[in-house]
Amino acid sequence: MITPIIYEEGLVRLLDQRKLPLEEVYIECRDHYQVAQAIRDMVVRGAPAIGITAALGVCLGANTIPASNFNDFFSQLNPVIELLANTRPTAVNLFWALERLKEVVLQNKGLELHSLKQLLVQEALKIMEEEKSANEAIGRWGKELIKEGDQILTYCNTGSLATGGIGTALGIIKTALWEGKRIMVWVSETRPFLQGARLTTWELRQCNIPHRLITDNMAGHLMQKGEVSMVMVGADRIAANGDVANKIGTYTLAVLAKEHKIPFYVAAPTSTIDSTIPSGHQIPIEERAPQEITYIMDRRIAPEKTEVTNPAFDITPHQYIQAIITEKGIIRPPFSFIL
Amino acid sequence: MITPIIYEEGLVRLLDQRKLPLEEVYIECRDHYQVAQAIRDMVVRGAPAIGITAALGVCLGANTIPASNFNDFFSQLNPVIELLANTRPTAVNLFWALERLKEVVLQNKGLELHSLKQLLVQEALKIMEEEKSANEAIGRWGKELIKEGDQILTYCNTGSLATGGIGTALGIIKTALWEGKRIMVWVSETRPFLQGARLTTWELRQCNIPHRLITDNMAGHLMQKGEVSMVMVGADRIAANGDVANKIGTYTLAVLAKEHKIPFYVAAPTSTIDSTIPSGHQIPIEERAPQEITYIMDRRIAPEKTEVTNPAFDITPHQYIQAIITEKGIIRPPFSFIL
Repeated sequence: MITPIIYEEGLVRLLDQRKLPLEEVYIECRDHYQVAQAIRDMVVRGAPAIGITAALGVCLGANTIPASNFNDFFSQLNPVIELLANTRPTAVNLFWALERLKEVVLQNKGLELHSLKQLLVQEALKIMEEEKSANEAIGRWGKELIKEGDQILTYCNTGSLATGGIGTALGIIKTALWEGKRIMVWVSETRPFLQGARLTTWELRQCNIPHRLITDNMAGHLMQKGEVSMVMVGADRIAANGDVANKIGTYTLAVLAKEHKIPFYVAAPTSTIDSTIPSGHQIPIEERAPQEITYIMDRRIAPEKTEVTNPAFDITPHQYIQAIITEKGIIRPPFSFIL
Repeated sequence: MITPIIYEEGLVRLLDQRKLPLEEVYIECRDHYQVAQAIRDMVVRGAPAIGITAALGVCLGANTIPASNFNDFFSQLNPVIELLANTRPTAVNLFWALERLKEVVLQNKGLELHSLKQLLVQEALKIMEEEKSANEAIGRWGKELIKEGDQILTYCNTGSLATGGIGTALGIIKTALWEGKRIMVWVSETRPFLQGARLTTWELRQCNIPHRLITDNMAGHLMQKGEVSMVMVGADRIAANGDVANKIGTYTLAVLAKEHKIPFYVAAPTSTIDSTIPSGHQIPIEERAPQEITYIMDRRIAPEKTEVTNPAFDITPHQYIQAIITEKGIIRPPFSFIL
């Protein structure tokens, strides 16, 4: 069992995903500053995992607030939430989880602060449990889409490391395998952070799921040769019209899948749906540091001062998506996610 | 001036392209075995550069043959040519150059062996000079396709390092810039060997050509945002019907270009055309070592024993290609390269 996020009294332990697969080490966060830094630095990544971690970060932050009345507490909790909200802009689960914790506070103004802080921890752990259950439901729905002998191309990491549960896209793949379906997974390395090469291979190996690693630029060639029967990815934010923000490179896979008439599926919990925005155009795309591209594992690969563009996500328009698999069922076009 | 291949009496010096951009060092090859190893190990790469290097390898090999009559000489030269031909299977320039040298031998049976060996060196250097002239002609033709303000996506390295001249696709870009056209180049890093990140950025920097580096999975996103106006790539072998073998990932760019209605151009000397094969289906695709993917700059990025697929090239069917730019002119569909 892979456990990327562990909560202990006053402590959040995070499996350092920057170090995998070479080292399996946890870092310890004792306050919300350390949690925010860990999210920014991608110690933990994956939309659901970021949401859970941020919620736990609020709990650690709440513990540091010395207020003795609700109003003081709430006014000091707000910058804690702000700090965590400003770590990464694209995955909506972050904001959704923070909003849930804020709501708990507002709904329980009358409680003693000590009890309120306990309630926050309960809510954060409830989010974690709900994401686990959602993963399992996604797996049950999604496995029906997978046929015996499928060669499934997946992207980034959508497994336990990204969710705390069995995963979204990877949860479906695991569930199908556990049902005895003979499948093969193509793992695209996912530059620049190499979530595929470093994390998904590591996770599939632990689950004994047959897989082969490729570089991201090989997907088209494999599809042309008929060696991919399905693309299955996760999501960081889904707009009301079904447009999907996901790890940079996802859109390229969607275009390739369309060209080769291969189904393209997105798996995500409903916490990833942002029905407040009409389309993918409104989803903010995080631009990350150039060094993520010009260095790999601390080794420089490009000349000094090379200019870089490093968007962390892209938008796959809904037209490219055959179905979105959530814990509530398989949703097919036309997509319309309204609150 | 970048000089990747230098011939001195009895010696071939190769700029070690595995070490760029961090180190600029030459390795010295004193016989055909060392030349063959350098080609296999990608000390030198790029279809035209491989052809030139192999031709010089034949010269070094010829010098080691102690024969005193033509028949002995020729029978000992054949395994030298064989060895060099077996280094890399995809780029046709290798076989074309070796064939030219063999032809020189067969056409000059009457010469003294000493003179024949000199003639081989002359022919190899002539191939090098011809490739340089071809690059310049490709540049002159191709520059007409480039408009002021173009944002050109290029792939792998098609410059001096790949050809010994100004380059093919990169030669066109350089020529357009030298004519005063304001252009910007998107450099795709080109995993796994990182020719884009390591070599093309290095070369563009030397030429003061504005450029930005991206990972290969970002091309679709940039096209979707309207930030790419043209794709310009090289080729390793072109079949009679215009299908193009080029660095793995080229086909993905062609599909993306089609989806976004962006012109996709291929630049190559006619030495890259293999009119003996009808289509891309017949072009052998080299499969390289898994370690090229699981390690980057000697650092392991994937779990031990991870299975890998590592095709070094892919085939872009002719339907995706707007034009092929050769030293003889711009060729548009329908393509038909017949001897």
